[in-house]
Amino acid sequence: MTTRPASPITGIDHIAILVRDIDASLPYYRDVLGLAVVADDVNEAAGVRLLYLDAGNLAIQLVSPFAAGAIAAALDEHGEGLHHVCFKVEEMSVAVGALAPAADVVVTRGGRNRLTCFLPDRPNGLIMELTEIDEADD
Amino acid sequence: MTTRPASPITGIDHIAILVRDIDASLPYYRDVLGLAVVADDVNEAAGVRLLYLDAGNLAIQLVSPFAAGAIAAALDEHGEGLHHVCFKVEEMSVAVGALAPAADVVVTRGGRNRLTCFLPDRPNGLIMELTEIDEADD
Repeated sequence: MTTRPASPITGIDHIAILVRDIDASLPYYRDVLGLAVVADDVNEAAGVRLLYLDAGNLAIQLVSPFAAGAIAAALDEHGEGLHHVCFKVEEMSVAVGALAPAADVVVTRGGRNRLTCFLPDRPNGLIMELTEIDEADD
Repeated sequence: MTTRPASPITGIDHIAILVRDIDASLPYYRDVLGLAVVADDVNEAAGVRLLYLDAGNLAIQLVSPFAAGAIAAALDEHGEGLHHVCFKVEEMSVAVGALAPAADVVVTRGGRNRLTCFLPDRPNGLIMELTEIDEADD
């Protein structure tokens, strides 16, 4: 691949698939596609369970709501399917400053206890998350 | 990450974002996110333009229809947004045999002149493509 211009994005950490019931959905990804489960988390504040599968060069996250909130609302409105892309950044404050300079962005601890935020922009309806990641964690 | 069980999938090649007009959408991905364009293809048989951006560990594909077909129909029905995931496999015939043993799967030459097919299964509504890729190409 060619050299990229200066970008705060170093890669894609995961793509998220919104599902009603992780336990019901997991067998396809694990047993048919053959992807290993690498983490199974709960984010109490967001009211979601987050299960991560190793797809080789990035993770697939299955996300399922157990309480009212943005994810439950998205499931009601749009149903199951691809939900968002999470970009890896080296320094959250630098990336937020570059990608959302005019917005109030809330950075929290998300799945796998990593710093995370969602960007206000939704180009082509694309929901974009950022996560700060040490490559040593990867 | 932990060792994966035997899987024909070696990684994710690209995620596709369905857009109405690639020229109108491109500036956000290229100039705001800072992702470099690595290929700009037309698939005449599918009636689509396919533009690939380097997201580091995989590509983001912008796909836009210029003729009637499955992609134009999806755009009419669902609008813009995340459309499918394309998994990398080492050997297409082996992967299709493992992941769609009972189906008639049509393997064609897709974007970047690579062997490609779409799987009949749509777990949680997820549209899955396979592409055969030599790691030397990557």
